Amino acid sequence: MRKGCRDTPISSNSRLRIVLVEPRNPLNIGAVARAMSNFGFLDLRLVKPYEVAFREARSAVRSHYILESAQVFDNVQDAIADCTLVAGTTAVGHRDLHLPLYRLEPAAELIEERLASSGVALLFGSEKFGLTNEQMSFCDWLLRIPTREEHGSMNLGQAVAICLYELRRSSAAAAERFPPADPVSAADRDRITSLLLELLGRSGYVNERTAASTELKVRRLVRRLGVPAGDAETWLGIFRQILWKLSQTDSR
Amino acid sequence: MRKGCRDTPISSNSRLRIVLVEPRNPLNIGAVARAMSNFGFLDLRLVKPYEVAFREARSAVRSHYILESAQVFDNVQDAIADCTLVAGTTAVGHRDLHLPLYRLEPAAELIEERLASSGVALLFGSEKFGLTNEQMSFCDWLLRIPTREEHGSMNLGQAVAICLYELRRSSAAAAERFPPADPVSAADRDRITSLLLELLGRSGYVNERTAASTELKVRRLVRRLGVPAGDAETWLGIFRQILWKLSQTDSR
Repeated sequence: MRKGCRDTPISSNSRLRIVLVEPRNPLNIGAVARAMSNFGFLDLRLVKPYEVAFREARSAVRSHYILESAQVFDNVQDAIADCTLVAGTTAVGHRDLHLPLYRLEPAAELIEERLASSGVALLFGSEKFGLTNEQMSFCDWLLRIPTREEHGSMNLGQAVAICLYELRRSSAAAAERFPPADPVSAADRDRITSLLLELLGRSGYVNERTAASTELKVRRLVRRLGVPAGDAETWLGIFRQILWKLSQTDSR
Repeated sequence: MRKGCRDTPISSNSRLRIVLVEPRNPLNIGAVARAMSNFGFLDLRLVKPYEVAFREARSAVRSHYILESAQVFDNVQDAIADCTLVAGTTAVGHRDLHLPLYRLEPAAELIEERLASSGVALLFGSEKFGLTNEQMSFCDWLLRIPTREEHGSMNLGQAVAICLYELRRSSAAAAERFPPADPVSAADRDRITSLLLELLGRSGYVNERTAASTELKVRRLVRRLGVPAGDAETWLGIFRQILWKLSQTDSR
């Protein structure tokens, strides 16, 4: 009966980071940890959790080993730095999200594929508001649990439990597929984005009035780009060289 | 994206009875009602609920319409009287259960089949002990969510949510993947390559001695890049702007 859990090597399970962004309710944090223990996932990360909630959750009796080792971050960027795929969750189907939106089932397959070789972050927004547009801009794509249109928003603990169940359920299928080329890490992608933004600033593509919206736009642009991991350094070198040339000519 | 929910006619949904046997925790009862609302199930039945818990759960803000119409029974027998299939849930794999034991996935298929024509009860035992042997004796068979052996027991609200999700998840949905973005045309890729080469020449990345090999290298680099078709113009615009800036400063 439990074969599905044993099919997936623990190394693959340990590559999934469950990232709760600004969680407020200690019971939800505890429920997430319990579901992680149920399905054999270990890596819980919290971005700016409500202090009291995290303390209360840690004092709860069950699944303490997952909460004990949970890491706390100041921002989404740092929490996902070691991941090559960042998937966000949303309850909303109609909003213009600027990102591909998958139903949970195919999304779980994509996550499983990537977990075979590298780290994946699964982001859950705050209980009240979900992920903000800014937080979503760090995501490669979004997934949606197929709830009813009239009542789409799920309880956080239940949403995490369903995602983990679906990941375990589909793991056997994903193992049978061919691994794709190593994708670039989120950290390298951020370095590419930063250099490109500097380049755009220097060349007058960005002006002060539109700087903020351009930053989001460029981050999405780079995220949509399929940079192979082995090419990241080359692209960084290219951008650095152009930047150096621009600074040379500026200072003449 | 929400097709899976609409696939099943509401009459079929309304034939599933979620039966909580002796639930103790008002938050769990509320969470069950919320998950039922999320996935479009209406018929909640409680067998000997802890009085205070049920009262507290009913006073919660969300999903009240499901709790308002919930029926309370004195025993399992009465709660399942109008059903032709009674499925119990268990976290335990090894106990001698005297009943067929299915994993959730095939169990959900059996339930779906029966729902097409008649009522099905899905029984969840108390948070602390699960279903007793006596309560199990009313079941046709048992199902088990594929949790880890070392920590099989799930939170009640999460267990119900996962069962309802699995029921909604239709096999057709699996095929319903979002189409991948249109890849860039070879012509646009060539334009990107040319502009990038010009940029590399101007910025001193390329020297005359290595020009030929660099051209090949850059062409391959761009070819390995997954540029979505819709982004080609943006990238061309970015490169043109940088090029313009470089030529401006050069001619000073």
